[in-house]
Amino acid sequence: MRDYVEIGVGREARRTYSLEDISIVPSRRTRSSSDVDTTWHIDAYTFGIPVMSHPTDALASPEFVIEMDRQGGLGVINAEGLWGRQADLDAAVARVVETVNAVDSMDFTGEQAIALLQELHSAPIDEDLLAERIGEVRASGATVAVRVSPQRARELAPMVIEAGAEILVIQGTMISAEHVATGGEPLNLKEFIGSLEVPVIAGGVADYTTAMHLMRTGAAGVIVGGGTSTNEYALGIEVPMATAIADVAAARREYLDETGGRYVHIIADGELSTSGDIAKAIACGADAVMLGTTLAPAAEAAGKGCFWPAVAAHPRFPRGLVETPQECLTEGVEPPSLEKILQGPAADPFGNQNIVGGLRRAMAKCGYTDLKSFQKVGLAVKR
Amino acid sequence: MRDYVEIGVGREARRTYSLEDISIVPSRRTRSSSDVDTTWHIDAYTFGIPVMSHPTDALASPEFVIEMDRQGGLGVINAEGLWGRQADLDAAVARVVETVNAVDSMDFTGEQAIALLQELHSAPIDEDLLAERIGEVRASGATVAVRVSPQRARELAPMVIEAGAEILVIQGTMISAEHVATGGEPLNLKEFIGSLEVPVIAGGVADYTTAMHLMRTGAAGVIVGGGTSTNEYALGIEVPMATAIADVAAARREYLDETGGRYVHIIADGELSTSGDIAKAIACGADAVMLGTTLAPAAEAAGKGCFWPAVAAHPRFPRGLVETPQECLTEGVEPPSLEKILQGPAADPFGNQNIVGGLRRAMAKCGYTDLKSFQKVGLAVKR
Amino acid sequence: MRDYVEIGVGREARRTYSLEDISIVPSRRTRSSSDVDTTWHIDAYTFGIPVMSHPTDALASPEFVIEMDRQGGLGVINAEGLWGRQADLDAAVARVVETVNAVDSMDFTGEQAIALLQELHSAPIDEDLLAERIGEVRASGATVAVRVSPQRARELAPMVIEAGAEILVIQGTMISAEHVATGGEPLNLKEFIGSLEVPVIAGGVADYTTAMHLMRTGAAGVIVGGGTSTNEYALGIEVPMATAIADVAAARREYLDETGGRYVHIIADGELSTSGDIAKAIACGADAVMLGTTLAPAAEAAGKGCFWPAVAAHPRFPRGLVETPQECLTEGVEPPSLEKILQGPAADPFGNQNIVGGLRRAMAKCGYTDLKSFQKVGLAVKR
Amino acid sequence: MRDYVEIGVGREARRTYSLEDISIVPSRRTRSSSDVDTTWHIDAYTFGIPVMSHPTDALASPEFVIEMDRQGGLGVINAEGLWGRQADLDAAVARVVETVNAVDSMDFTGEQAIALLQELHSAPIDEDLLAERIGEVRASGATVAVRVSPQRARELAPMVIEAGAEILVIQGTMISAEHVATGGEPLNLKEFIGSLEVPVIAGGVADYTTAMHLMRTGAAGVIVGGGTSTNEYALGIEVPMATAIADVAAARREYLDETGGRYVHIIADGELSTSGDIAKAIACGADAVMLGTTLAPAAEAAGKGCFWPAVAAHPRFPRGLVETPQECLTEGVEPPSLEKILQGPAADPFGNQNIVGGLRRAMAKCGYTDLKSFQKVGLAVKR
Repeated sequence: MRDYVEIGVGREARRTYSLEDISIVPSRRTRSSSDVDTTWHIDAYTFGIPVMSHPTDALASPEFVIEMDRQGGLGVINAEGLWGRQADLDAAVARVVETVNAVDSMDFTGEQAIALLQELHSAPIDEDLLAERIGEVRASGATVAVRVSPQRARELAPMVIEAGAEILVIQGTMISAEHVATGGEPLNLKEFIGSLEVPVIAGGVADYTTAMHLMRTGAAGVIVGGGTSTNEYALGIEVPMATAIADVAAARREYLDETGGRYVHIIADGELSTSGDIAKAIACGADAVMLGTTLAPAAEAAGKGCFWPAVAAHPRFPRGLVETPQECLTEGVEPPSLEKILQGPAADPFGNQNIVGGLRRAMAKCGYTDLKSFQKVGLAVKR
Repeated sequence: MRDYVEIGVGREARRTYSLEDISIVPSRRTRSSSDVDTTWHIDAYTFGIPVMSHPTDALASPEFVIEMDRQGGLGVINAEGLWGRQADLDAAVARVVETVNAVDSMDFTGEQAIALLQELHSAPIDEDLLAERIGEVRASGATVAVRVSPQRARELAPMVIEAGAEILVIQGTMISAEHVATGGEPLNLKEFIGSLEVPVIAGGVADYTTAMHLMRTGAAGVIVGGGTSTNEYALGIEVPMATAIADVAAARREYLDETGGRYVHIIADGELSTSGDIAKAIACGADAVMLGTTLAPAAEAAGKGCFWPAVAAHPRFPRGLVETPQECLTEGVEPPSLEKILQGPAADPFGNQNIVGGLRRAMAKCGYTDLKSFQKVGLAVKR
Repeated sequence: MRDYVEIGVGREARRTYSLEDISIVPSRRTRSSSDVDTTWHIDAYTFGIPVMSHPTDALASPEFVIEMDRQGGLGVINAEGLWGRQADLDAAVARVVETVNAVDSMDFTGEQAIALLQELHSAPIDEDLLAERIGEVRASGATVAVRVSPQRARELAPMVIEAGAEILVIQGTMISAEHVATGGEPLNLKEFIGSLEVPVIAGGVADYTTAMHLMRTGAAGVIVGGGTSTNEYALGIEVPMATAIADVAAARREYLDETGGRYVHIIADGELSTSGDIAKAIACGADAVMLGTTLAPAAEAAGKGCFWPAVAAHPRFPRGLVETPQECLTEGVEPPSLEKILQGPAADPFGNQNIVGGLRRAMAKCGYTDLKSFQKVGLAVKR
Repeated sequence: MRDYVEIGVGREARRTYSLEDISIVPSRRTRSSSDVDTTWHIDAYTFGIPVMSHPTDALASPEFVIEMDRQGGLGVINAEGLWGRQADLDAAVARVVETVNAVDSMDFTGEQAIALLQELHSAPIDEDLLAERIGEVRASGATVAVRVSPQRARELAPMVIEAGAEILVIQGTMISAEHVATGGEPLNLKEFIGSLEVPVIAGGVADYTTAMHLMRTGAAGVIVGGGTSTNEYALGIEVPMATAIADVAAARREYLDETGGRYVHIIADGELSTSGDIAKAIACGADAVMLGTTLAPAAEAAGKGCFWPAVAAHPRFPRGLVETPQECLTEGVEPPSLEKILQGPAADPFGNQNIVGGLRRAMAKCGYTDLKSFQKVGLAVKR
């Protein structure tokens, strides 16, 4: 059934596809984009737009998370980032941004900024500080989602839920339902999730089997992909996103049948930059997307255009680039608001602004008015 | 029959090909290029060369449209562009060109020029002004073709025909035979086209089914492709042109059979730059091409080398780049005449000049002397 | 049998391969490169190395042609180039080189140099002058090969043979066995070749059928490919060389059987830059190669590093780039001798020098000691 | 069984894959990277990490070889390099480095540095000097591996073993089990290896048949690939590494069966830069890797960032580039220690540092704890 090739005598590999390899093909009546509904749900929570932010301090200032909520999306706070480690959060982020911008862009290898991130993250997590900050966001009325790593989930989850987290995100660049370590007790995600009172979104995964196991843990949502990690270079691990999303969507159908109707939401996190990419991810089977660099230029983002994923701060083996788009460095250029990036109006023609408007128009031009049915739109592979 | 691949478990995509992916393979006697006939017809109108201009104010000055006619082609006026919105048309276009050229080419993101286009297009259409300008071109004796969008076709078509339009072009980046909007009456193209006294060319489309529906509306010609739009990035929608043209040509054959002989002309509009691209488009099944950037360097073009498609001026979600080829910015370089670009002689070796001569030679080297039979020439796919 | 894909409904294209797409795979014992024999024959003429030079004034000074002979190769003179048109040949070539080098390499579009070539070639051919120059080369004892176009073959061939040409090269970028022009008499190559006393090498061709027809005209050699023409951009015509050479080699086998043993030599002319490319061309079935840019840096070449194919001078539709490798422009760098380029020793690691040594080593590492048997070496396609 | 395509009529080529074409797909439980065992053996020698250094003077200073041993790897000394030819080894290497760095990086063609390498290697091998230097390394307690070419193996092997070599590496860019030269006696590797008292690692090979023959000579290890040679450009010979490694691994399985259990180790040497590449090579079937440019930035490396393979010094046909990564030229930047490159901690996110940590994590994320079983991990081909 799958498409396998023999790369060498007796050794097979599966042919896989990235979002860049595919495109959407309209073949029905067209509709008006104002008739399109982009509503999306996790558990009892309803979101007007299918957009989460990647859990990184480069995005999540309190202001950013609150504005994400106001726009209908979901901003995610990283419990293991700087919120709980640095009393002066703004100053800490500003130091990273300054280091990035001070380096000549031609010689930049990212090492100085990563070294600084490693240093800033070597401070221990002050749970009171973290709880206080989570509480402030909760107090604003915004929906609060907090990310923990699988390694520290047992330790930190009770505290962040207590502090106000309404959705727990258990996320590593690549995780499994059961992590085994000699001399430690494996984290049994099923038991753990069962013990929590809040819905859990878990990932990233990139294949059918791991996704199926993750769904069976009771997760409300599964994240597909490794975000903007450099796993490809550092680990040799990469599953192109079109294939990864479609595989996990197939696991979801199987699980839906197995459970007689439990629908697990799929959130794509990887290869996502423009509104066209978002439309493709949903066309492959995702219900929502988790965005990183796309949201980084927003005036409300903590990093002021500078972006890094959480894994860039790993103490021994960082796997994420610290980057600043050139336009964010240009003096005198006003950064766009998060609203402009999400809802427009856009002056950029490449789908970097009004990204939800772009998704609406992609759906409308193909004759679809809701996200779920758009998952069946026709696809083409280039060549 | 079609070539489908499984991109993920249970999710298929069709393998498609761009003009860049293919090439023409000669395999017969060669002929003299002077024996080649490039004549092309729409309804009662005969054209010496199978070339239309893309409906944009970057090309269509009155002078440009008249010269296109003199060269045997067809220049298309955009009824929703600046001709009817700006009393001083030359000054308005000059402002755009100036904005583009003022920006340092390395930092250029196109946003300033697009913002200006949005502003200039926010002025309402002055129907008297538009009619007067259309009338001037008609008075020159040139064939007059005017483009309207599907959204405003009912409103504007009667007026532009009254003003002198002999061919109506109903064009959006991607359209269907029936556009549905809640609370509005869908545009029934068949009824609408049936009510007009002039031949209609409609598009763009990119697939067999939509093209078939469009042919059944009574259109004399169907445009394949989305021009130079950035739909790929902004919407994720893209059908590589070699596949799109061949699919629509197949619909044309089917429709010809269905109607017992009604031949709908296919105009390719996308991935077209050099004379080699034009030859490939016809080899895939097109009868003519609609050119944009290729014609932009012409001295007669309004934009003096600067080009943008109509959709670049969209108020909320622009999907076209404003661009100027480097050589048009070089001081002291004489711009080529439209005649030189179309009919030569060329000094450029890459098929940017004497593009009709290039088409003639491509046909002659493959042993064909008319456009229709050249649609059967042998093709190769690279790799 | 062939590998065809459906690019659109009902439209097929053949999958083809360039030399860059393939590589040679050793799988036998290795040999010493000093045991390799690269001898090659056309008719009664024997050459120590399977290398012809492309017929362009950028290469063929008398000194260059004589040195090619001394090195065991064959330098080709272009009868329709500047040798017969410009009394002061050195000055004419120097003007072209100067024009090329005067232009800033970043802005260079080649148009000024092409316009100059067009002007220099607009002078009529002075047959006495041409004959005198051909005679001088013949007097040196070097084997004399002269190229004429199919269009002017009848007119010029008798004169160049009279002047001393021992091998006639009838070459256009793409030719057929029978060129048809209304109101003119088609050139019947078979009759024409039969009337000549010297062996004829003809081309370029790129497919099985045309090659078979060309072999049946009695040509001693067939050229595969269009040299360094820009046909791909200007005409949309391109047959990737690995496929083209293999197809013509198959026609050669068929023709060998048809004639009971007449062996037509195949000369590859296209996609050839390094010694690795040459080895691949022979591995695909070529007996020899025709080189252009590879030989241009030679101190003996007329253009001093500057290169253009004959078709770059076409009066209405030039299809060749005038180019100068950056290193030829660097002051104070000694140009390599033709001997160094052909026979080494090399200091360049990319197969731009000692190209025959490279071919020898490629053959030796695969266990072959003659060109003919090396045509059976194992090949790989990348991906 | 194999995947063959017809590149032209009657001419086939096998489809092959590079490491860049593939990626690793996790699909099992995850494990802790601290539970991963990367131990590797050759004969009686055990190594903590599966990393050998490429035999070049750009890496192998005595200090470098000793540190490789300390880190658990194996540094290889080139018996035909400068150790035995230049009394002042440091000065000789410094001259090369200086020549490379003196050249403007934009104009650099490598020829000056190669010419210098050719000059330095034209000095004869002083066996006493070489023996003394090998002896010094042996005296440090480090495992001593010395490389000889197949051409000079008979002459030099006894001397280097006498001097202290514990492992002999017989390596050319492409070798076979039997090298034939007219007028010379072919080197019968089987006989030769049988006569030695030390284990032999031989290569490079790139196909099943040659590898099988090499295994039958009694080699303890077989090197797959041609390192960082420019064989692709210079010879047209290239077997993409994923296919080459998998083919040789298949030959190993066959040979294991044939011999009833003799396990030959496979060392990959080519297309290797980051830790991700190393993980992929082992996933394809390699037991260890031979690294060149990856180790060059180490403070202990002789070339101080500058790298060249042994074949770059070939007197008539060099096939290796002399290169310096930009960051090694930047003043004031501290070079990383070999320990940092091999074992971290890393600040670089692209797998250029802590490469063994990267391999451990790749294995752990796929649920494997030893190198041998990781050879069965799931693979994907991109597209």
